[in-house]
This record gives sequence, structure tokens and C-alpha cells, in this order.
Amino acid sequence: PPQNFPKTPLPLLLAKEANSKRGRAQMADSSAPTRVMMAVNESSLKGYPHPSISCRSAFDWMLSKLVRSNTDGFHLLFLHVQVPDEDGFDDMDSIYASPTDFQSMKQRDKIRGIHLLEYFVNECHRLGIKCEAWTKHGDPKEVICHEVKRVQPDLLVVGSRGLGPFQRVFVGTVSEFCVKHAECPVITIKRKANEAPQDPIDD
Amino acid sequence: PPQNFPKTPLPLLLAKEANSKRGRAQMADSSAPTRVMMAVNESSLKGYPHPSISCRSAFDWMLSKLVRSNTDGFHLLFLHVQVPDEDGFDDMDSIYASPTDFQSMKQRDKIRGIHLLEYFVNECHRLGIKCEAWTKHGDPKEVICHEVKRVQPDLLVVGSRGLGPFQRVFVGTVSEFCVKHAECPVITIKRKANEAPQDPIDD
Repeated sequence: PPQNFPKTPLPLLLAKEANSKRGRAQMADSSAPTRVMMAVNESSLKGYPHPSISCRSAFDWMLSKLVRSNTDGFHLLFLHVQVPDEDGFDDMDSIYASPTDFQSMKQRDKIRGIHLLEYFVNECHRLGIKCEAWTKHGDPKEVICHEVKRVQPDLLVVGSRGLGPFQRVFVGTVSEFCVKHAECPVITIKRKANEAPQDPIDD
Repeated sequence: PPQNFPKTPLPLLLAKEANSKRGRAQMADSSAPTRVMMAVNESSLKGYPHPSISCRSAFDWMLSKLVRSNTDGFHLLFLHVQVPDEDGFDDMDSIYASPTDFQSMKQRDKIRGIHLLEYFVNECHRLGIKCEAWTKHGDPKEVICHEVKRVQPDLLVVGSRGLGPFQRVFVGTVSEFCVKHAECPVITIKRKANEAPQDPIDD
């Protein structure tokens, strides 16, 4: 609780009686669950459990601050975008020479993607929150905005590493792009400073 | 409801028994209301009722999609930032020559600010949602981020006109600045295309 919260808020005025059409529309609206789409990705740290620090902490924040005890009011949609050209090259220990090699690499990426989503789906089941999860391939920022258009969620949640302007030049940020281009409200949740790994580019 | 939602979501896996420390912490956390700060501003259209189109529509969205029927779970904080150099010059019909003139201008701005906040406070009372409201003077984006630091809300809500890159060069955007610099999660809610006035710079 903040110490120096405004001591003299403006006088809270008496409510007018306004059982208006708008008020009733709001009530009707809130019967369908709020559909929250969340873009999740793998951690870049080897040996770290699957979800990245920023998306795991965005997920926890969303549960405790938005969903709260109202588990029936929300329906969570988890999207994992696999980047075809980058995935799997980190721990490459041989030259990929044949179509079979690429095939098995793709197969392994697919399994990793499913394991990532498994984490979030398990958590939702444990808490009794309805959810769905799927993977797509492509450039994460483009695919996320495309899926927002297709699936039409009420809200998109994106985690962010909270990088400074200098770091952003090199890595780009998915969250910035989504805030500008996604066709729905977007919530950006920055990673906390004490959660950042040694190299802030990692996540 | 979207027509072509993924037909084959990944198999929803069986929940593991995981009555972990983390699970209990989430429950405890959710007992205190979620404190949502909202930056509100006046409409730039003369004769239009006080709140801007984008902040009023962000407020409605927040009520129907986040707060829903869980009115006890949220505590709303309304901040209005008055810009000292711009307010009131639009409809100036005389030259301000004496300190008294400036005084009465300030007085009028103060009353307009209170009327703006009255709209939101009234709505909250009608719906039974706890709220507070206050005004500050200065550069909106700087003041909003400063107030986030001071008041430490769980979430900052900012409306946005959803301007294109060309328009943004001239008007700047408060929302972009807040997403980058505010020390809490930020939700950006773009004005819908069908709500935009003739000149999209207006709001």
C-alpha cells in the first residue's frame, strides 16, 4: 500500500439514479466469458523450464490480478508461435544434410511446443479455468496479430523483457508491434528487474 | 464468436495434482482488490460531453470485460492531468492582461477537471465500485508515469486514438510513452474506427 496516496481525493459525489439502457447493456455483456489471448514462448536459457520468464510472470499476474476468484468469467487462449528458421539451431551438433534430418528437427520442435503449452493448460485445469491452446509457425509479431484478427479475443496479453531503447534496436520487440497493430486491447506486462537473467536479452 | 476458431486444439492434458505453495500464494493475493489506475482526459470536440471518446470507451470496456460482475474485486483510481499551457486558450475571447485574469482561467480549468472526474465517479457509484479521483498539472505522459510510481496501482489503463504512424509524428502519443515507462502493467485500448470523429486527431 502506497504511503503517500493523495490525502484529499476529490469529494465522491452522490450517484445519480441512472438505470439507463447503457447500464443494462453492460450487464448483458458480462454474461459471456472474457476471452483473453496470451502469446507464450519458450525460455531462451538452456536447462530452464519451458516457458520464458516474462510470459510465465505475465500469466501469474493475469491470474492473480484480473481473473482473481472469478474463474468462470474468463476463457484463456494460448498461442505459441514457432519460428521456423531459428528453432533448434542453438544446440545443433551435426550438419543437416537430408530431408529426414529436417523432418526429425521439425518433429522435435513440435514436441517442445506442445510441452510449453502443456504448462499453461495444466495450470488452468488445476484452477478450473476454461482454456484452449494451439501453435502456429511464422514471425511471432505478424502471426499474433493475424490470429487476433481471426480469433477475435477481447484482450491480448503480451509479456515483455522491458529492454531499454539501446537493446531494443537489436532485438526488436513483439509487444510494441502488437500494441500498435493488434485489433483488440493489449496489455503489456514487463518483466520485473529482479526476475531478469544476467543477460537481459535472455528470457 | 469467430467462425474459424482452431478446429483441433491441442489435447487438453489432465491436470497434475499440484496444490503447491505458488497456488496458495495466488489465493492470498487475490483477496486485496486489484487497483486499476485510469488516465482520463477531456474531449477536444467543443460541445461534446466532457470525457474524450477514447477514455470513455476504454472505461466501458474495462467495466464489461475486466471488472464484470466482480465489483468488489476492483478499486478504480482516476487521474486527470491538466496541461497548464494549453487549457482554455481555445475559446479565449480576450487578452489576459492581469494576474486576476489568469486566476479566473485557472479556476475555470479546475471546475472543468472536476466535472470530468464527476462522470467517472458517478458511474462507479452507480455500479457499486470503490473509486478515487484526483487532478494533477503538467505534461500528461510524465505525470501519469510519476503518479504510477507514487500510487503503485496494479494496472494502468490508457485509451488511445489509434492513430497511424504519420499522424503520430505530429501529436505524439501518451499511451506509447506509458507502455514503455510506467512501472506497472499497462493496457492500451484503441478507439474503434466507427467511433472516430471526422478529424481523427480529435477525440
